[in-house]
Amino acid sequence: MPNIVVKIDSTVATPEKIEKIADRLIEQKNLGNNIVAVVPPLENLEDRLLQFSQILSDNSSEREQHALNSLNTQVASNLLAISLIKKGVKAISLNGWQAGIEVAKSNQNVLIAGISHEHIIEHLSNDEIVIVAGSQGVDKNRNILEMGEGGPETTAVAIGAAINAEHVEILTVQDGIYTADPRVVKQARKLKQITYDEMLELANLGASYIHPRAVELAKIVEIPIVVRSSTENIEGTMIKGEVDMERNLIVRGVAYEADIIRLTVGYDSYEQSSLADIFTTLAEHKIDVDIIVQAVIDGVKPTVSFSIAKEDFAEAIKVLEKNKTVLGFSFADFEVGLAKVSIVGAGMVSNPGVAARMFDRLRNEKILVKMVSTSEIKVSVVVPQDEMVRAANVLHDEFNLMEVIA
Amino acid sequence: MPNIVVKIDSTVATPEKIEKIADRLIEQKNLGNNIVAVVPPLENLEDRLLQFSQILSDNSSEREQHALNSLNTQVASNLLAISLIKKGVKAISLNGWQAGIEVAKSNQNVLIAGISHEHIIEHLSNDEIVIVAGSQGVDKNRNILEMGEGGPETTAVAIGAAINAEHVEILTVQDGIYTADPRVVKQARKLKQITYDEMLELANLGASYIHPRAVELAKIVEIPIVVRSSTENIEGTMIKGEVDMERNLIVRGVAYEADIIRLTVGYDSYEQSSLADIFTTLAEHKIDVDIIVQAVIDGVKPTVSFSIAKEDFAEAIKVLEKNKTVLGFSFADFEVGLAKVSIVGAGMVSNPGVAARMFDRLRNEKILVKMVSTSEIKVSVVVPQDEMVRAANVLHDEFNLMEVIA
Repeated sequence: MPNIVVKIDSTVATPEKIEKIADRLIEQKNLGNNIVAVVPPLENLEDRLLQFSQILSDNSSEREQHALNSLNTQVASNLLAISLIKKGVKAISLNGWQAGIEVAKSNQNVLIAGISHEHIIEHLSNDEIVIVAGSQGVDKNRNILEMGEGGPETTAVAIGAAINAEHVEILTVQDGIYTADPRVVKQARKLKQITYDEMLELANLGASYIHPRAVELAKIVEIPIVVRSSTENIEGTMIKGEVDMERNLIVRGVAYEADIIRLTVGYDSYEQSSLADIFTTLAEHKIDVDIIVQAVIDGVKPTVSFSIAKEDFAEAIKVLEKNKTVLGFSFADFEVGLAKVSIVGAGMVSNPGVAARMFDRLRNEKILVKMVSTSEIKVSVVVPQDEMVRAANVLHDEFNLMEVIA
Repeated sequence: MPNIVVKIDSTVATPEKIEKIADRLIEQKNLGNNIVAVVPPLENLEDRLLQFSQILSDNSSEREQHALNSLNTQVASNLLAISLIKKGVKAISLNGWQAGIEVAKSNQNVLIAGISHEHIIEHLSNDEIVIVAGSQGVDKNRNILEMGEGGPETTAVAIGAAINAEHVEILTVQDGIYTADPRVVKQARKLKQITYDEMLELANLGASYIHPRAVELAKIVEIPIVVRSSTENIEGTMIKGEVDMERNLIVRGVAYEADIIRLTVGYDSYEQSSLADIFTTLAEHKIDVDIIVQAVIDGVKPTVSFSIAKEDFAEAIKVLEKNKTVLGFSFADFEVGLAKVSIVGAGMVSNPGVAARMFDRLRNEKILVKMVSTSEIKVSVVVPQDEMVRAANVLHDEFNLMEVIA
């Protein structure tokens, strides 16, 4: 029997929703699969515990906070098991330790160090649906650690690799990966397949239903991920290493991100400019810098522009002002009301001229490009925010994405 | 440094109460002790989880229900650790598995099978206050099991034995063990010491702040227990193997229990009567029988009377009627409005005539004795309920218990 790991939607917050998920898992089991379900926390419970602990301490012990947060996912998995058993199937819930999930802390991140998969395998061979409290494990000193953002998906992929699963399913609010956000680009189509790299770019560009960390791990361990709707039982999108080129499409997705701010810092001379210093300082204040463009004015006065998210703006300005002397720049400038629009496609690597085609179309549409950033499989442009939707639509049209067959 | 295990009161339900307990533990640590705190569940959280799981299944999987219930105690211990750390002391919370508490199921009971105490010891030698989620452990198959009633106290005693603690403290609403309930017997005095056996009798007679199971274990492992107030830092009562006879008191406590019902079953002949059958049948229906008295009417017709609690009455009558033919009795009768009053004292063993003195005083007071039961260190009588308080007071007086020095 093939093993399938299913990462449950984060909306298991009511008994009705738990029952629906239970039905879905039973359906999949009855198709002749061994099922491991990985569950995220019960959201409303988490809030309550956090509130309680915050009354006791505004800066509570990290270890204890990890242990406390981990209980939520355990509650969710207990409840799902109770529902499955009530419906007449064999099921068992395992917390991170019981499932053999070993983690280790690296800087501030909790990473999966290994999985002693014998426990999960044993229960699967006993014909049980195995429910794993996602996003948690134990370290060598028996401390319970929570993996934070992307933890449940990453756990699902790691378990998939450990038990040699056929694929990992990520159930989410959307029924697959689209060529663009259907709310903004009417002609957007669902992709049958997408590569890990393309998905990584899209995930980093805001496709929030799957965390880049999980895609990265899946790419390393070479396990296919299927992104599917958590409510409707319809085909989703498979993420894997190499995909069949659908109608030879070079670009396979258009993504966008609103509320971008461009900051520009100017130096009087090259001697004074230090890119490393400025970005190290910003990173120390947890300000996420996206696109970076270096330019030279008058042949001698260098400037560097970079994009940041709106919510980091006030802090960034404060940090720059405070460190002006140390960082050695002579002026700082900014522009608000910008957005980022990107095209993504593994086919770009072997097809030069994709970026040129993108810029050409935008120029014809009179959409001003403020910044540009490229990777091997992605081109991003920063444009005025009121042109964002139009830019996404014309690029979707330019690269024939409406022709993708869902 | 001496090790002390402190079982926390069950009222850690608000941040204020958690902080008070934290202060109390810090005080004890500062006196030069290593502290292990054993915490019971957060009561209000448990209700909520139970409610949730009952919506999903009215008869949920026992294993999952155990796992779910265990989370409560973990929350409580996380929160206590957070509070202690905030107050500047080193503290760590351990769930049953982390603390090395191994349990095994025997019939429907979850018993402590062993304690791998190296984890607790390690944290104590690191100068941490160790907080253990009471009442839970893991079995050989990594299942989390909850110990049920008396679990936290029993865990505290077992840990005390495993780490060679000086004594185990049970913090509770009352500030010690009294010669009688002070609400009923005005002259009741707090005992300095009491034996395990005396405490076992008193606990079984309704002294609910310490479960008989914990006293039993303490007696076996010979560890002293101190029952103390959870709110006031005053001396309590020590429970141990042998006590200094305070002023040669033979009787050391008077206990009472209201709402007793006496059932009487009569047989036509000895051949038909089978005590084993009737009490087996009642036990199968979970009806707890206390005092049993067998009598003979007319020289040939045997009867058996027994006392049960009020809440079991309806069920008991139903069970007896349904099984009348099988059990072979010819009539069943009952008397309501009764109460049980008991005297307890290890000194009775070597002092004959204590029961006689008790009956004599009750007769002088014109208090009717309906049933009698004796053990080596206890005599219980069933009396009319409206005489209960007076009976407790006259017996307290008869055996000079007001002279006990608190």
